Amino acid sequence: MADISIYNPTDLGTPMGQYTHVTRVKASEFLFIAGMLSGDSQDNIVGEGDFNAQCTQVFKNVEAALRSAGADWSNVVQFTTYLVHSQDIPKFMDFRTREFPKMFPDGKYPPNTLLMVDRLVKEPFLVEVQTIAAL
Amino acid sequence: MADISIYNPTDLGTPMGQYTHVTRVKASEFLFIAGMLSGDSQDNIVGEGDFNAQCTQVFKNVEAALRSAGADWSNVVQFTTYLVHSQDIPKFMDFRTREFPKMFPDGKYPPNTLLMVDRLVKEPFLVEVQTIAAL
Amino acid sequence: MADISIYNPTDLGTPMGQYTHVTRVKASEFLFIAGMLSGDSQDNIVGEGDFNAQCTQVFKNVEAALRSAGADWSNVVQFTTYLVHSQDIPKFMDFRTREFPKMFPDGKYPPNTLLMVDRLVKEPFLVEVQTIAAL
Repeated sequence: MADISIYNPTDLGTPMGQYTHVTRVKASEFLFIAGMLSGDSQDNIVGEGDFNAQCTQVFKNVEAALRSAGADWSNVVQFTTYLVHSQDIPKFMDFRTREFPKMFPDGKYPPNTLLMVDRLVKEPFLVEVQTIAAL
Repeated sequence: MADISIYNPTDLGTPMGQYTHVTRVKASEFLFIAGMLSGDSQDNIVGEGDFNAQCTQVFKNVEAALRSAGADWSNVVQFTTYLVHSQDIPKFMDFRTREFPKMFPDGKYPPNTLLMVDRLVKEPFLVEVQTIAAL
Repeated sequence: MADISIYNPTDLGTPMGQYTHVTRVKASEFLFIAGMLSGDSQDNIVGEGDFNAQCTQVFKNVEAALRSAGADWSNVVQFTTYLVHSQDIPKFMDFRTREFPKMFPDGKYPPNTLLMVDRLVKEPFLVEVQTIAAL
């Protein structure tokens, strides 16, 4: 069973969003999840042109990947989030402020690195989340 | 010896390329390989202006890094691939469709996150692959 | 205690900067550090418009994160560095050439992947460094 500690070092400023600076993890089993996009189980693109709908689907997909290994949100040790449009940053912040307290009821939000890139694998995708978890 | 399981959770759609959604790995030894570019052992840039030639060299370099630790393609737990031009996405898809069945004869293609970025360390580089493996 | 070996495989060319191609690590405890930006402990942005000042602060923040777990630079197994402007690449190279020998006196510079992206979480940020360490 992974021993996961998520914390903010005292020397660092307040995280700029719903994430924490550091995960310290003692584990012998890890989950590497490919970047999740807003596709559904029938291979349809969900939420074309709708950032919030895409975010919802992306995290739903990450959760499905976690569950497939008997894991849940508390197993996540690192997120890396890619957005295509910087205009979506406030929407991403709003999404996490609204949803993360339900997903992470202890307030231990995993470290995240937020990056604006040119494009994802298909033009309509607006957000992608890459996840590492410990079991 | 790493115990690596690469699989697609039933709740997720078909991967959009030659990759798999999840690696579950039990291991105590890992390999973190710097992003590999299309350089050769004599520090020449290989395949300037030729995406396919660069792809070939990049994966040749990743393989050299794996072999240096007595590992091979079956040890890879995560790829992250960066392309400079979205026009090269179909070429990347073609490369994997053609080459990955030889590299991964069991069809267990590691999770990959595919990102279009502005530029790599030198202007001529068109593709970079970052790899984590388990030993 | 992590057993970390950082080395360049003979088949690969010279790294294009102050990094090494491969980390091989035997460890049961890891540190995943969120991408560090140039903020200080009072939540001020440090070095607006000054790449070198931002670089200094970013690595100061990474170091604070490492220290919070009783670790230091020798524990780093992977860096991923994101720059906003390709014009800053030479400045980043200069920074590492100047500072890394002090941070890594044995010359074992961790693998790094250097990427140019569109933007970071706030417009003024010019550089971000994501770090994985082993304890």
